[in-house]
Amino acid sequence: MRSINASIITIGDELLIGQTIDTNSAFIGQSLNKIGIWLKRRVAVGDVKDEILNALQEQSKNNDIIIITGGLGPTADDITKPALCEYFNSSLIVDENVLQHVTNIFARFNRPMIERNAKQAEVPDNCLVLHNERGTAPGMWFEKDDVIYISLPGVPHEMKGLIEHQVIPRLLQKLELPAVSHRTLLTAGQGESVIADKLTTFEAALPSHIKLAYLPAYGMVRLRLTGRTNDASTLEIELGEYFDQLKGLVNEWMVADKDISIAEAIIQLFKTKGKTLATAESCTGGYIAHLITSIAGSSAIYNGSIVSYANSAKENLLGVEPSTLQEFGAVSEETVQQMAQGVLKAMSTDYAIATSGIMGPDGGSPEKPVGTVWIAVANKERTKAIKLHFRFDRQRNIELTAHTALNLLRLFILEEEKE
Amino acid sequence: MRSINASIITIGDELLIGQTIDTNSAFIGQSLNKIGIWLKRRVAVGDVKDEILNALQEQSKNNDIIIITGGLGPTADDITKPALCEYFNSSLIVDENVLQHVTNIFARFNRPMIERNAKQAEVPDNCLVLHNERGTAPGMWFEKDDVIYISLPGVPHEMKGLIEHQVIPRLLQKLELPAVSHRTLLTAGQGESVIADKLTTFEAALPSHIKLAYLPAYGMVRLRLTGRTNDASTLEIELGEYFDQLKGLVNEWMVADKDISIAEAIIQLFKTKGKTLATAESCTGGYIAHLITSIAGSSAIYNGSIVSYANSAKENLLGVEPSTLQEFGAVSEETVQQMAQGVLKAMSTDYAIATSGIMGPDGGSPEKPVGTVWIAVANKERTKAIKLHFRFDRQRNIELTAHTALNLLRLFILEEEKE
Repeated sequence: MRSINASIITIGDELLIGQTIDTNSAFIGQSLNKIGIWLKRRVAVGDVKDEILNALQEQSKNNDIIIITGGLGPTADDITKPALCEYFNSSLIVDENVLQHVTNIFARFNRPMIERNAKQAEVPDNCLVLHNERGTAPGMWFEKDDVIYISLPGVPHEMKGLIEHQVIPRLLQKLELPAVSHRTLLTAGQGESVIADKLTTFEAALPSHIKLAYLPAYGMVRLRLTGRTNDASTLEIELGEYFDQLKGLVNEWMVADKDISIAEAIIQLFKTKGKTLATAESCTGGYIAHLITSIAGSSAIYNGSIVSYANSAKENLLGVEPSTLQEFGAVSEETVQQMAQGVLKAMSTDYAIATSGIMGPDGGSPEKPVGTVWIAVANKERTKAIKLHFRFDRQRNIELTAHTALNLLRLFILEEEKE
Repeated sequence: MRSINASIITIGDELLIGQTIDTNSAFIGQSLNKIGIWLKRRVAVGDVKDEILNALQEQSKNNDIIIITGGLGPTADDITKPALCEYFNSSLIVDENVLQHVTNIFARFNRPMIERNAKQAEVPDNCLVLHNERGTAPGMWFEKDDVIYISLPGVPHEMKGLIEHQVIPRLLQKLELPAVSHRTLLTAGQGESVIADKLTTFEAALPSHIKLAYLPAYGMVRLRLTGRTNDASTLEIELGEYFDQLKGLVNEWMVADKDISIAEAIIQLFKTKGKTLATAESCTGGYIAHLITSIAGSSAIYNGSIVSYANSAKENLLGVEPSTLQEFGAVSEETVQQMAQGVLKAMSTDYAIATSGIMGPDGGSPEKPVGTVWIAVANKERTKAIKLHFRFDRQRNIELTAHTALNLLRLFILEEEKE
């Protein structure tokens, strides 16, 4: 079976000018990969007809599937649709189903429908219209010279619905695809190069249809094995065996043997143990709470956070002693320990995390430069605090502090288990 | 003056497989745009030598500058560097400065340096080495047939440092560039198509060197005017005049006449008024706090948040009546109003925001389906609450609730000013 190659063309000046980050391509890449289609290229072009036509021409040479996103919104459709008409030698017609759907959407929200909105129902006369249940711009499926072209709106939520409910099922039906499978694990506390050094022999011994990837993020490294073959029956077993070897090799750093975030790993750990958690956040400013509460079901183990940005909140809501703040400052071992114990009581939980630090760009001093962070984790019996120093920008300092704090809590609980 | 075109080539399987979202391209696009370089293409290829070579060949045809990112990490450098050597007809040599820099970094962090790390100091012998002050993989600058090629590591923090401190200054020195200027404003509460309809005449009357862009995000729409000309002296005045017209046309929906987020607009408003803010978050789970505290200087106006995920926290820390929770439920007008008044007292602030809702995917009921949200804003005199219904996934429901709540607070304060 020959492999099926795909390319994504994203359309929009906003992507080139850097006003928008392209999250669509990652989602499409993942979705195609899961069904065994290899994304070979991703190309972004501006809202320029010739550029769109060139990209279509170019990408059609080496690919079986071309997915086009963007350029279909109510203020942008004057370029992409005519370009598609020219490329596929078709003309625009009104699709009555789409027009009815758009009309219904505006009626439901009690909004006036203007001509610009009605134009969303115009489609090239030789495409298959893909119903967009989440918005007004329909998807379009074309076939030309053995290449499939799929045009989708750029709004992430709408594009995702179309990929899941229209594109993937149709591709599965139409194509004969190889079996692809992944196994991912998450490590923390060790750098990419040391892990890679430990895995040199393992990686060299992998058969050619199984690949190892290193995916570092937030001071952690994900390791992913991908297998791709025509024999689905043996792939799972084979991949499982290599994954067991891999787990053994990186065991000391492994946080989870699945593709989950550290927040998800913590939630699962707490659910298993039947324990509850609260956080007291100064420098992370609610970001740890956000990481946890982004995950459905977190309310079962997470009582909440006291984001004590002002010192008065540290005193009044967390019971930090005014003398502690005066003597040691808000960014100190003493304060962060009292914050952890304070929120443990205030939220009546089994465990707590507290953070306090200087995230920058201002607020540093010679003794406590920007990037100085204290983190504490606690249960009723004990508190453990560590000091860190990050050298990045504000956003990244916040992210790294949050992820490090969650990992410290995990290690704190593991220590207890060993005792 | 002819225009200078650039292309970005990002290298890495992780980008094609969708494990990593490409945030680098947006940053590079913005940085180039600011100095008048038009990013014409963005291409992503996998870790495959031939693909890299093809992309270099292709992109060099229509561009003056090619920026390559990724493929230089300690576990990935076996493909990109040899590809660059082949393309530029060079061989790898050890750069002593880079080797010293890498050695110093490992010494500073007390980490063992292994061969894999030392290899970062190997560079093609015909490139200009760009010092990476933030990491071990250096940048590389090549010139070939009147095209400039710049290879940068893929780690965002390192890439950014190199762009700012090495690439942009050198490009400015080397090239004669047109003047480019932007004016951006933020609107809330109105859809893209209605705004576009109101701006049809304005947009049609713009001269060809000034362009209007619509940039929707989180239920808001940014409008951006971009001017590009060789005559820098008149551009600012001309752009200023069109921007004043634009502001007049969208005045009723305008949140800010700068390119800032709604959280930044709120912080500036509060600073001007000398007022303070606190939040009580249930369904947004700390995300509003995160949006505010992500902005440097927010501590001047923001006291903190009580993320009351558990009902016990709503009762004990925010003073919500147990009878209210029992009778009306946590997601109700009565609860969210008490939460707002409660945090106003607990944090001793002038204003407060409170949120409570069902973010999904579970937890809905026939009377309160997933996506039902109550938001309240309050000062000491009054409380205003609204009910919303979002139909998206958990993450997007959280984001939209947070942005809507910040805009509700803004309108609440504007109402006071009118009284």
